[in-house]
Amino acid sequence: MSRVATGSRPIDLRLAESALAGARTATEPASFTDWFAEQARRAWMRVERVPLDALADWSADARSGVIGHRSGRFFTVEGLDVRVADAPVDRWSQPIINQPEVGILGILAKEFDGVLHFLMQAKAEPGNRNGLQLSPTVQATRSNYTRVHGGNPVPYLRYFQRPEAYQVIANVRQSEQGSWFWRKRNRNMVIEVTEEIELLDGFCWLTLASLHRLLAVDDLINMDSRTVLSCLPFAGDHVPCSGGGGFDAALARSCNPGADSVHSTAELLGWVTDMRTRIDLRADRVPLTGLPDWHYAEGAIAHDSGLFFEVIGVEVQAFGREVADWCQPMFAVRETGLVASVVRRIGGVLHVLVQARAEPGFVDVIELAPAVQCTPANHDYLPAAASPRFLGAVLGAPADRVRFDTTLSEEGGRFYHARTRYLVVEDDGDTDIEGDRYRWMTLHQGAELLRHSYYLNIQARSLLACLYSVTGR
Amino acid sequence: MSRVATGSRPIDLRLAESALAGARTATEPASFTDWFAEQARRAWMRVERVPLDALADWSADARSGVIGHRSGRFFTVEGLDVRVADAPVDRWSQPIINQPEVGILGILAKEFDGVLHFLMQAKAEPGNRNGLQLSPTVQATRSNYTRVHGGNPVPYLRYFQRPEAYQVIANVRQSEQGSWFWRKRNRNMVIEVTEEIELLDGFCWLTLASLHRLLAVDDLINMDSRTVLSCLPFAGDHVPCSGGGGFDAALARSCNPGADSVHSTAELLGWVTDMRTRIDLRADRVPLTGLPDWHYAEGAIAHDSGLFFEVIGVEVQAFGREVADWCQPMFAVRETGLVASVVRRIGGVLHVLVQARAEPGFVDVIELAPAVQCTPANHDYLPAAASPRFLGAVLGAPADRVRFDTTLSEEGGRFYHARTRYLVVEDDGDTDIEGDRYRWMTLHQGAELLRHSYYLNIQARSLLACLYSVTGR
Repeated sequence: MSRVATGSRPIDLRLAESALAGARTATEPASFTDWFAEQARRAWMRVERVPLDALADWSADARSGVIGHRSGRFFTVEGLDVRVADAPVDRWSQPIINQPEVGILGILAKEFDGVLHFLMQAKAEPGNRNGLQLSPTVQATRSNYTRVHGGNPVPYLRYFQRPEAYQVIANVRQSEQGSWFWRKRNRNMVIEVTEEIELLDGFCWLTLASLHRLLAVDDLINMDSRTVLSCLPFAGDHVPCSGGGGFDAALARSCNPGADSVHSTAELLGWVTDMRTRIDLRADRVPLTGLPDWHYAEGAIAHDSGLFFEVIGVEVQAFGREVADWCQPMFAVRETGLVASVVRRIGGVLHVLVQARAEPGFVDVIELAPAVQCTPANHDYLPAAASPRFLGAVLGAPADRVRFDTTLSEEGGRFYHARTRYLVVEDDGDTDIEGDRYRWMTLHQGAELLRHSYYLNIQARSLLACLYSVTGR
Repeated sequence: MSRVATGSRPIDLRLAESALAGARTATEPASFTDWFAEQARRAWMRVERVPLDALADWSADARSGVIGHRSGRFFTVEGLDVRVADAPVDRWSQPIINQPEVGILGILAKEFDGVLHFLMQAKAEPGNRNGLQLSPTVQATRSNYTRVHGGNPVPYLRYFQRPEAYQVIANVRQSEQGSWFWRKRNRNMVIEVTEEIELLDGFCWLTLASLHRLLAVDDLINMDSRTVLSCLPFAGDHVPCSGGGGFDAALARSCNPGADSVHSTAELLGWVTDMRTRIDLRADRVPLTGLPDWHYAEGAIAHDSGLFFEVIGVEVQAFGREVADWCQPMFAVRETGLVASVVRRIGGVLHVLVQARAEPGFVDVIELAPAVQCTPANHDYLPAAASPRFLGAVLGAPADRVRFDTTLSEEGGRFYHARTRYLVVEDDGDTDIEGDRYRWMTLHQGAELLRHSYYLNIQARSLLACLYSVTGR
């Protein structure tokens, strides 16, 4: 379906070649570790927790308590009243981040010696527990790139503002955390250029092979990079397959639209229609003041149980970014989340189990999530019926069935120290585990859905990027 | 892509055969005209305008003025404050219908003597200016089919409540009028059965050929039928094509995914992403009381200019429906709307010009609309810059370029006497008329987009159904 190609070489083949590029190429840093350590020495960020009511330029509306920036831009923190019919937890309240503007998450791509490379940035974010992480070439909210804060221009932005002038490899708006964001959408873009590109300080070119290796490092490839990487059109008729019964071959076969799938794409779409019709979740934005089960104490907004997350204030001083210092609210998440894909070889083709999951901030009721998506610690508080169905299975899987296991960070611009353990667990059973809410999907079906908005949630996209990274390890 | 088939006969081929079925089949009424006239004699509906504040079971909220049913179900009439950046009309207020529940619009299909037939219903709706129109097998809101009003069960509903037990030909939620509805979605379904079906009074089986002939009759095929028909997977590798340079051949070729298109589907999707990012429309639900530019007089809510629409009350007495009498608010639309597709043969393949159009009630900023969509009378009031770009061209087209011209009704359950002239005009030029907001699209690309929600608006879908009907005329 995709016609993106340079000359006659199709994009799925070129992506596969970049993913299989064996050693460091001449364009990559001689040692990524040394390069990254050098960046960490140059970039500097001091983040200090401050009370919400002491944040410069931010204030709470006297009546509603909604927290906003004095420019009216960036984002607000509001209250949300959520009702879900026939659910173990059928009503709750929570703060939520409302950021209506669509930002750009863009990666620039270019062939060097016939191999696609991707321009990545070593970037500090206030929520990163470890300072620097590897981000897309451009990671900018509209407020950010229209320079509401009066900082320096965003490097490389122009390629993403006029994509039609270049080769567009990916260009689709996708949701972000539906439990923390109200209908947040970012534009995920990969633009290929052939012209000379100046390599600015803090940036480096990497092949997919290198990016995939680095995905196995804790807290290195940031969330924005992962979602953009997941939108690459990996699937196609030209994905090379080694043959045989191995995991790699099943994964490669799964990328081929000609491979058999348990469900046709039409069936999967019909199931999504069914779930979006049947699941009755209503979310209403309400005042933050007097939000049931939440309280303001010590300069932060917290849940009465002490679980879930806190809305905190931070004061940031940065060097090597567009702005030298600023204040902002963040969601602080103490407990590590867990998301796990369950995969299975069916007829020699790798299938991923996806879950129809309603989150209050979704634009359209449900999106497809990994088989398991939760914060285990919160289940001490929630009713037993709310416990994820496959939690025990993925945590108890034998080591040789665990295909991926890395703890990665969530968006460091809004979430303070939010980490998630990403697992890919292979299931070797053959029993029917789908029920109403789960379906087996191939990777080429995932790639087809990812051409459109709101099918795969941010956790599922992150895990897809991780799953692709298993190739050729 | 679609795998819907009975045995080895693909659905696109079977639809084409049904569309080309020459004469009346044995299953169809011997004379549709006589059958329909007989239905009109049996069905009876008296509709009387009454003041909004005299509607039984409906009332306006004391503070907000929002009009709702005492059950809390069905729909509400609310106010909307709309802002569009950089538009000729950059801010306005209007009443809007909020109907959050997803209803079912479903057509039952069955082969008789090897030809697909569709079960249609002669149905009276209070807004129909001519009483009966031809509706889908099932046309039911959730309030309706869960029998909030305590009426009789909806006939044939069970097939659509358990679609997985049958052959699903179409199953997708689509938007309705984004200028009059707040995020309304209905589930468009076509379900094929092989079992015996009792033919109830008021229903008849028709081939696509008959439905297509009837689409040329004013105010006969209702809006709900048109949107469901548009979601049929007409496109595919098996659409028969007569060859040659004629309009029919170009139309058939346009249904074939192998045919050349001006833009790849990836390019069209990228353009949609771009439009949904750049167009900045914000719509906020506000009280109906004190809505700027609107006033309450003589029991109705009207715009100060007398244009656009009025919110009125009606009292309905019906015979041959689930309920014998009820009251409800409606939008009364005095002036006839105009929607026009501009089509062009490009490389022997028919292309349709679609417009990226923002409407305040859309779920996701824009949907693709016909080249022209307006109510000409309203442009006496609106600024000249708001006048549709191709309005003069379609109204002034020579008769031999007008491929379709019928005035059809909008949804008679919510809109009172709302009619629209549907035009398909062939453009024989070869100049570039796309600009930022318009793109050429083939029918197979349209069919691909129609597998997903929110790409083609209700007017574009109606016109697609009309365009398919031109085949073989």
